This record gives sequence, structure tokens and C-alpha cells, in this order.
Amino acid sequence: MSAFVWPARVYWEDTDGGAVVYYANYLRYLERARTEWLRARGHSQQQLARDPGILFTVVSLSVNYRAPARLDDQLQVSCRPRLRGAASLDFVQQIHRVGGAPPPGGSAQLLLDAQVRVACVDATSLRPQRLPAFLLEAVDG
Amino acid sequence: MSAFVWPARVYWEDTDGGAVVYYANYLRYLERARTEWLRARGHSQQQLARDPGILFTVVSLSVNYRAPARLDDQLQVSCRPRLRGAASLDFVQQIHRVGGAPPPGGSAQLLLDAQVRVACVDATSLRPQRLPAFLLEAVDG
Amino acid sequence: MSAFVWPARVYWEDTDGGAVVYYANYLRYLERARTEWLRARGHSQQQLARDPGILFTVVSLSVNYRAPARLDDQLQVSCRPRLRGAASLDFVQQIHRVGGAPPPGGSAQLLLDAQVRVACVDATSLRPQRLPAFLLEAVDG
Amino acid sequence: MSAFVWPARVYWEDTDGGAVVYYANYLRYLERARTEWLRARGHSQQQLARDPGILFTVVSLSVNYRAPARLDDQLQVSCRPRLRGAASLDFVQQIHRVGGAPPPGGSAQLLLDAQVRVACVDATSLRPQRLPAFLLEAVDG
Repeated sequence: MSAFVWPARVYWEDTDGGAVVYYANYLRYLERARTEWLRARGHSQQQLARDPGILFTVVSLSVNYRAPARLDDQLQVSCRPRLRGAASLDFVQQIHRVGGAPPPGGSAQLLLDAQVRVACVDATSLRPQRLPAFLLEAVDG
Repeated sequence: MSAFVWPARVYWEDTDGGAVVYYANYLRYLERARTEWLRARGHSQQQLARDPGILFTVVSLSVNYRAPARLDDQLQVSCRPRLRGAASLDFVQQIHRVGGAPPPGGSAQLLLDAQVRVACVDATSLRPQRLPAFLLEAVDG
Repeated sequence: MSAFVWPARVYWEDTDGGAVVYYANYLRYLERARTEWLRARGHSQQQLARDPGILFTVVSLSVNYRAPARLDDQLQVSCRPRLRGAASLDFVQQIHRVGGAPPPGGSAQLLLDAQVRVACVDATSLRPQRLPAFLLEAVDG
Repeated sequence: MSAFVWPARVYWEDTDGGAVVYYANYLRYLERARTEWLRARGHSQQQLARDPGILFTVVSLSVNYRAPARLDDQLQVSCRPRLRGAASLDFVQQIHRVGGAPPPGGSAQLLLDAQVRVACVDATSLRPQRLPAFLLEAVDG
């Protein structure tokens, strides 16, 4: 399955006193891409929390920071999900810079890659829950 | 001058334990709209910091919170600048909800209005600086 | 009533690419002080949400930014509440720098003052709710 | 070497709409502990950026999320550094809950463990730089 890609722009809110994006804030970009991947399949998390009553929760992650993003940079955040059992997904994610200041040397530059494991849980009890059918069918094992 | 409008989506990162957007995080949406208004005039803040060596800094603000935004809401953030002397701008800003969950009853709902005073300062000394000509010409007095 | 004061330290997470605290993040410091003022009266917001089932929500605010806070600065955040009717409080708040880098010239420097109006609402319906007795008694009208 | 421990309190700013701490925000707690570990050795990052002109930058990390932190929780964030070559440090970090709501069953509960690799870089060029002597001496290989 090819990767889902979602754009993000770097604003002041994302940067820190080193004039680069604060290390925790890249995780926000990663989540936006996962959320939009789900929305592109026709599902919002608000709806899923009501019916069938599930939430997604991050169980573990690893991140390699390769180059910093800076104010005004235009980013592409990718997300490639894979089934891991019947109750969780492994997302392979990357962030590339495709524009901004300083201007890119042509092709996109890889800034970060990450693996994020997400579990499906009951929205009330927070206990592990089988992934809904639309995800089991849509995602490679 | 009609208002400049920029979209924003509410993600998990924006919400707090009350299941609404955290009160400080609306200020991030407001700034994105001001930044994009400037970019729509052909200027990024990274470039302006290098040449002519200016930054914009918020001097004061007031906000009225009218209704909360929630996860997945689609927002419209508006921004209407006005000159205040030769070294600062007053922005009248609003945030409307135009979609999301729960579904809107048709027209956009006003969630927040704000006034934000922004001063132009020297990027090194942080002392007040005359607004660049392109802004003095573009904005109503 | 004398002001309640709560310390805060500036970390990387608080700063932005201008090497100062991001304008929205001062609102986090203000809220910590209000929360700790309440806790000093023996009440956590988690408990109040369960019994008697109330939340506090910011209705409006105004902020004057007088001087920037920087990485490593040691801040004092003050909070002086006043009753406004039976269902809301007006907090007068200030942030002073008392130390950090560059070293202070002796006395504390005022960085910011703010007024924050907070309404008491029902935790479920979010409708206005009379302030609990312990607050009506503890706060000046 | 025994672990350095730094307290953190969970505020509204840290939580998300799931009523738990947002997954990226635990990384802020982790950084505060690393910063305070350095400060306990007599060094602020502002000073080190000026003399000898170094910054610390996160190169990679991995996190296991074991249980969520909630509003009002009192946390203990630990940090155990180890040399990795002459230009980087590996921090083993943990977050425990020691109080808050719901009340803990006695001993501290492990919420999260992490490994964070931090490189020492030149403050201007961002190129790798040998760790300062006070760190090479203070930290186990």
C-alpha cells in the first residue's frame, strides 16, 4: 500500500528558542497525518468514540530526527499503516520538507522517520478492543 | 477592507481534558491567520527577519470566548488589520465553526472574537521599528 | 486580599523561534496559578467535576505583554480573584521575572499583566452554575 | 549512578480530549528533567550556548506508554545519563505517578519509560561537538 501524505506548515507555535521545531511538536504533525488518513477512509474519531465506542491510543513509538524543520517550512507528513494483530496498528511515518526558507535544493529532504504503534481501545474502559471491520479490511497485515 | 480568512482543523493536540480546545490554543489559530495574511502579501517572517531585519511582536490582546471548538471541528479564522501609528497594527480577528461534529445547523457559528495589537520591532534590538512600506500601503489607517 | 503567587520556570517547550516565550504560552502559566490557588483552598478540579459537578471556563481575557521571558527565567505568577456576580470570578494576574539568564538587576521585573474572567459551569451541560460556597466565602466581592 | 528525579504536575494544558495527557506532552516532562539534571550540575543551557557555544539536540528517542497520566496527577520524572562516545549522551528516563486523582494505591505507578539520545552540537553551525569536560567527568561511560 502506498503511503498517505498530509501537508503541514511550520508556524511560530511549533518552533523553540533554537529556531527549529521543538522535538515534541513533530509528534503533533505525525498525529494529524494519522487522523487525516482515518478521515480519508470516511471516519472521524469523534464518531468512532460514539459508535462503535472506540478510541485509538499510542502504545509506543520511536523517532529518528535527521534534520530540523524551521519557521515557514512546508512539510509533507506520510503515514503507512500495517496490522499488528487484531487490536493494533503499526504506522511507519516520515516527514519531508518540500519548501520554505531556506529554499530547498530541488527534491524533498527527509527530516524525520518514526514508527508509532496505536492500539484500539474501548472509549469508556480503555481496554483493548478489536479493530473495526473497515480497518481490518483496509490495512495490510 | 474585507477580512482575510484562513482555515484550521481541530486536532487532539488542541483539545484539553474538558473535550474542548484549550483556551490558550485559540491564540495559535489567530497567529496562523496573521502569518498567512502576511504570506498572501508575498512576505514570510523568516525573510523579513533577514531583510529589512524586522519581527512582529504581540503587545496586547483581548479575547471573548463565545462557544467552544471541539475535536474534528473545521474552523475559519479571520483577520482584519488596521494601522495604528507607523509602527504597529491592530488586528480584529474572529473564529467561526463551519463544520465538524456535532454537525452545524447550516451557517457558521461564531466561537471567538479577539483584538490583537502587533508591533514591528528590530530583529536584533527588539526596539520599535517603522512598518515596511508594503504594509503601510496595504493596510487601512 | 493579598495575591496568591506560584512559581514557573521557562523551558524549551515554552519558547519560540524568537528566543522568547511564545505569546500563547504565558496563558498556561496564568492557568497554573489559578489552579494552584484553588488547590491551596483544598480543591482539585478533578474532584469538583465529580462533586458538585462543576467546571471553570474562561469567558474573556485581556493581556498586556510588557517584556519577554526567556529560556531558564524563573517567574512568579500572581493571581488575585474577585467575585463577579454569583457565577463567575475576575482574576487579576501578573507575571514577574525573579531570576534566570541574563541575571536580574535586583528586584523583580513585571513581564505581563492580565485580567481573566472565569465562569462556573455545570460539568455536563456546560450551563452557568452558582459558585460553590467555599469560593463565595473565600473571595472578596 | 542513581537517577536524578524531578517533579511535574499535570495541568489542563497537558491533557487532551481523552482526559489524559496528550502523547507528545510527556516529552516536555522528559526534557524538563534533563534540563534540571544539567542545572543541578551548575549549568544552564543559555550559558552553555554562549560559552563554550554548545547546544544539545535530540537525535532519536523511543517511548513506551504504559498507563495514562490525568489532570492533577503528581509525577516524578527520572533521568539517568550515560556517555555514548564523546559527543552524545543516552538518557534512560521514566515517569511515575506518585499522587493525584484517582489516588494511588500506595507506591508509585510507572506510566512511561523512554530512551533519549542527545547530541552536543555547535550553537552556530549545529555540527557535532565534543561534550564539555564537566559532563565527560560527571557521567558514566
